Amino acid sequence: MAQKVTPMSQDYSRWYTDVVQMAELADYAPVKGCMVIRPYGYALWENMRDNLDRMIKETGHVNAYFPTLIPESFMKKEAEHVEGFAPECAVVTHGGGKKLEEPLVLRPTSETMIYHMYAKWVMSYRDLPILINQWANVFRWELRPRLFLRTLEFLWQEGHTAHATYEEAEEETLKMLGVYQRFAEEVLAVPVIPGTKTDAERFAGALRTYCIEAMMRDGKALQSGTSHNLGQNFAKAFNLVFQDPDGGQQHAWNTSWGVSTRLVGAVIMVHGDDNGLILPPTIAPIQAVIVPIYSSDEERVATLEVANRLKEGLGGGVRVHIDDRDQYKPGWKYAEWEQKGVPLRIEIGPKDVAKNQVVLVRRDTKKKDFVPVETVVADLPARLAGIQQDLFQRALAFREEHTHRLDDYDEFRALMEKGGFALSHWDGTAETEALIKEETKATIRCIPFDADAEEGKCIRTGKPSKERVYFARAY
Amino acid sequence: MAQKVTPMSQDYSRWYTDVVQMAELADYAPVKGCMVIRPYGYALWENMRDNLDRMIKETGHVNAYFPTLIPESFMKKEAEHVEGFAPECAVVTHGGGKKLEEPLVLRPTSETMIYHMYAKWVMSYRDLPILINQWANVFRWELRPRLFLRTLEFLWQEGHTAHATYEEAEEETLKMLGVYQRFAEEVLAVPVIPGTKTDAERFAGALRTYCIEAMMRDGKALQSGTSHNLGQNFAKAFNLVFQDPDGGQQHAWNTSWGVSTRLVGAVIMVHGDDNGLILPPTIAPIQAVIVPIYSSDEERVATLEVANRLKEGLGGGVRVHIDDRDQYKPGWKYAEWEQKGVPLRIEIGPKDVAKNQVVLVRRDTKKKDFVPVETVVADLPARLAGIQQDLFQRALAFREEHTHRLDDYDEFRALMEKGGFALSHWDGTAETEALIKEETKATIRCIPFDADAEEGKCIRTGKPSKERVYFARAY
Repeated sequence: MAQKVTPMSQDYSRWYTDVVQMAELADYAPVKGCMVIRPYGYALWENMRDNLDRMIKETGHVNAYFPTLIPESFMKKEAEHVEGFAPECAVVTHGGGKKLEEPLVLRPTSETMIYHMYAKWVMSYRDLPILINQWANVFRWELRPRLFLRTLEFLWQEGHTAHATYEEAEEETLKMLGVYQRFAEEVLAVPVIPGTKTDAERFAGALRTYCIEAMMRDGKALQSGTSHNLGQNFAKAFNLVFQDPDGGQQHAWNTSWGVSTRLVGAVIMVHGDDNGLILPPTIAPIQAVIVPIYSSDEERVATLEVANRLKEGLGGGVRVHIDDRDQYKPGWKYAEWEQKGVPLRIEIGPKDVAKNQVVLVRRDTKKKDFVPVETVVADLPARLAGIQQDLFQRALAFREEHTHRLDDYDEFRALMEKGGFALSHWDGTAETEALIKEETKATIRCIPFDADAEEGKCIRTGKPSKERVYFARAY
Repeated sequence: MAQKVTPMSQDYSRWYTDVVQMAELADYAPVKGCMVIRPYGYALWENMRDNLDRMIKETGHVNAYFPTLIPESFMKKEAEHVEGFAPECAVVTHGGGKKLEEPLVLRPTSETMIYHMYAKWVMSYRDLPILINQWANVFRWELRPRLFLRTLEFLWQEGHTAHATYEEAEEETLKMLGVYQRFAEEVLAVPVIPGTKTDAERFAGALRTYCIEAMMRDGKALQSGTSHNLGQNFAKAFNLVFQDPDGGQQHAWNTSWGVSTRLVGAVIMVHGDDNGLILPPTIAPIQAVIVPIYSSDEERVATLEVANRLKEGLGGGVRVHIDDRDQYKPGWKYAEWEQKGVPLRIEIGPKDVAKNQVVLVRRDTKKKDFVPVETVVADLPARLAGIQQDLFQRALAFREEHTHRLDDYDEFRALMEKGGFALSHWDGTAETEALIKEETKATIRCIPFDADAEEGKCIRTGKPSKERVYFARAY
């Protein structure tokens, strides 16, 4: 049998790394902090990307590609931006065998490059809005790398838009956060909390940052997507102006928004268990694996005949794989496909052939069903949709169980130690936020959109507060 | 009306740049040698990429993603490889605010990184073959950049495979060249000549390089795809060994193959004319543009009603755009969509509405057809397929017209000056190849697969030769 994953309860961090490596999602690269996304992990990412790409296009955006290399001077044009990103930059100093006159930064994010180009393209209000998205690799020098969660290079999409008014930009920022929430919940089966970041957690250079936050199995938060209203900060830094209908010159209003391969980490840590990965059917590279069970050539032919008939019947509608490797026993195969998180296993043994049935085993619940061969094909899409739903509901129930409305700081500290989200009052100051972080390692994940107005006292200082915010330790 | 493209006959190079910029395919980036692929150009590339990706997957390959940053020492492990690529490398020397212990190279191609990883993954012959493809950005320091054709950073796919035997690797190398030929001819409508590169033009580190070569409108050649049999060169440099069925240790056999955004340049220069771009329908972001013609609100409503009905009827099957901008006259719109190479224009004026017809105008031939509204929808896919075919045939005829079997060196020199391919005898030595290049700027594009055995004399030295090879100046 394949090597076993370290149990979550024993060592959560090791469990995570084991799942990533044993499912062959990714591997460490020779340069510290970099990773290789292996074929199975990349197929998963492709399914995520294609779904999100469709949603981004359906909301009127188009894709483009901007260069990776950004002049160092560009990074310095927006004061907050350089402060936030300069310490993380990778710098090219030599090219074609010569020292460069100006060092070039590998994009950590593309605001500077993109708004420089928009300034070239935009003349009049008729050229607005610009609604462009880019799929690209970005680079941030990470000192404590972790596969998918924090790597020196990662893949992402970054949307960059330019508008004539503040209102339009704000509407766009919220619209894209909504797209991210739908994507996370419907495609990844990951429930998220949408809200606003505090100033301390705001994107470097933004007016306001919105985010979606998800709870992992250890009760920690993972920021799963952000959408920034950049105001006119970059437009002013890059001279992005347009002529309004009255002939006046105005600075454009910008937004940017992104999600990355870090979401693969979210999928692993929201759905996985001690047997390995559990993948939501919508994004699983293999949605159902057929394992024929045979101990003679005759049985091999008979079970594979049914397997092939099923696969053909399902056509392109379901991603099915037949595991017909002779060198492994069925039990070994079960364990391998469980580690790889395939949502549904279809076992076909000689007895099943005789009874004209197959055995369906769900990865998430381990529930077994004996199903007549004739009905499997028609049945499978609904079963997969059911699993997708159940995964979402299970994750939501887990989050609710581990979210507490706390008003006592000792209880708060204990929860942060144990893992979970606290919905608590905060006095609204950066000082208190920093103090709580220092004392408990917890940060304010977001000020939720759906917060009820509620008079209360800050959990740390006792000063007055008007709403509860989400606190948690985070990845 | 939109600005006009410089005629090819007046200044070919300027024509090319005009087409790229006026069709909004790409723009110059702030870093010399880099480009921005604009949304229309990127949509074109996406259609190319998606078609090729499907073909690569249909032949049993999977995608993965390897890091951009390669330790400088890796580049030096294969002697020929470093000699070929070191002068073109971009080098990262600083990261996270510190000088790195070892400089990192931005991948100019990923053989070194990938075979290092394969060496980690491969134990036994059962782990072979590995058939992986990667879509990525790569970096080569170019001193004479040109949009799409030669840029410091470009997008491409690179396949990297590992096999147990030489024969399998050779079969793979040729299979992928076949995929490239089908892709170029069927998807891009670009006829190509498949063949073998001479040693002088071989990939740095390969045993043998196969290629497809296309003729541009100025008679120059563009190398449009290459497939390399790497032998065991990289396996030896990176210790990529496997245990064979008899328990012995053997080095694997590798292949690599790639095509890039340079193919966008091929599409432009094979099909375009003095009015701008001409796109093959299979990859055109917009396959048919509907231009309603009106001079009153009433006419606007009537013509747009037909336009919307058509678009709806075509559903997702054809990529249609309705140009309903009020601020431009129809003539202005025609010119713009011609520059952008949209294969088919559908004009709908008030008279057409009255006659229940539309006017179809082909971008390539300018031929006008009056077609009853009822038949347009059913008719359009076949019309687009016809245009695709005609573009290929036109390009093939052009290439044949400009290809000459030459045995006289003066005629050869004259043809190279004028533009065209020469099929001529060559004595098989690198010295003569270099001499001809020096004297005529022509290189041997390939030794074609379909060359007839034919005794002859080298066009430069008069020494004996057994087959003709293709000579041309090249991009």
